[in-house]
Amino acid sequence: MFRVYGMSASGNCHKVRMVLEALKLPYQWTEIDPGRGQTRTADFLAMNPNGKVPVLEISPGAFMPESNAIICYLADDTPLLPRDRLEHARVLQWLFFEQYSHEPYIAVARYLRRFHPDPASQRALADSKAEGGYRALGVMEDRLAHAEFFAADRYTVADIALYGYTHVAAEGGFDLARFPAVRAWLTRVEAQPGYVRMPT
Amino acid sequence: MFRVYGMSASGNCHKVRMVLEALKLPYQWTEIDPGRGQTRTADFLAMNPNGKVPVLEISPGAFMPESNAIICYLADDTPLLPRDRLEHARVLQWLFFEQYSHEPYIAVARYLRRFHPDPASQRALADSKAEGGYRALGVMEDRLAHAEFFAADRYTVADIALYGYTHVAAEGGFDLARFPAVRAWLTRVEAQPGYVRMPT
Repeated sequence: MFRVYGMSASGNCHKVRMVLEALKLPYQWTEIDPGRGQTRTADFLAMNPNGKVPVLEISPGAFMPESNAIICYLADDTPLLPRDRLEHARVLQWLFFEQYSHEPYIAVARYLRRFHPDPASQRALADSKAEGGYRALGVMEDRLAHAEFFAADRYTVADIALYGYTHVAAEGGFDLARFPAVRAWLTRVEAQPGYVRMPT
Repeated sequence: MFRVYGMSASGNCHKVRMVLEALKLPYQWTEIDPGRGQTRTADFLAMNPNGKVPVLEISPGAFMPESNAIICYLADDTPLLPRDRLEHARVLQWLFFEQYSHEPYIAVARYLRRFHPDPASQRALADSKAEGGYRALGVMEDRLAHAEFFAADRYTVADIALYGYTHVAAEGGFDLARFPAVRAWLTRVEAQPGYVRMPT
């Protein structure tokens, strides 16, 4: 039985839930609220010294942080993570793209607009994330104009990782109207077996 | 024969050179200068629509971006990338840590101080990266106080990825004096077979 320490409304955490549900793996979810300091307690830092959710407890006392490492761990030896050397690396390519070129803009803009205690004070900072976020969405559109999924011609953890914050990009102020291939892909992801909505 | 499109002084690109040299793989290096717009040409964007170095040409016309995906691809089935499920995920954990919690502070501060055309104008922005950079170094120190290497009790691509910008952190204004375990680990990395210095 896996245990997840996460915040349900976080895209990074929702990736983990999506993989667990897609693979029908049993798990317990412990809700953690970073906004209330729950990732800065001594107990939490003992699990992840970097002080971030999600954390997967693999076995008693064995903790794995980093959402994209967790989903690769869970998907090992399943269709969600190809074994072929090049296809596997393509999945990783999109996972690193997500963490470096997508999440810091789209997730951060959403956080500042929706979860920050004083969103009005953060407006200029949130606005500054628009250009990078739209650039990431453009890279996704470019890929999805020619392919159904990001890697390996099938649904993989790369799609799950990019779905995490893309499907709630509007909450970060992003308009997906200009990205028809991205919107069609969101629908394809939502049609996958075991798909689970982000809890609200 | 692999071809690398990269900027030699970039830590992200140097990771790729370190893995190629450690594995004694033949390669050709094509120097790309992002500061002169060379990652924004049509030819470059055809290789990587995200417009970033490094890019690995695996075979004619097959291009792989994202430094950490490239080094996993190259290290597949070698001692630099463990096959064991948990050890493999631990490597990924540190690779994602590097791209999300380390590079955006330590590499960006170095870029602004050393490579930006007008560093004085960027001083406040560079200074704003200090807190996150020192936090990342603290997480590394915490790990290395108890282990010789980041993952799997041996030298892996996780060490190479974190070495990329840590060994030039001083150029970003970071003082490693408070991080003795990190400094000892830098020395261990530099003693590995096939170690290659960043070209200057």
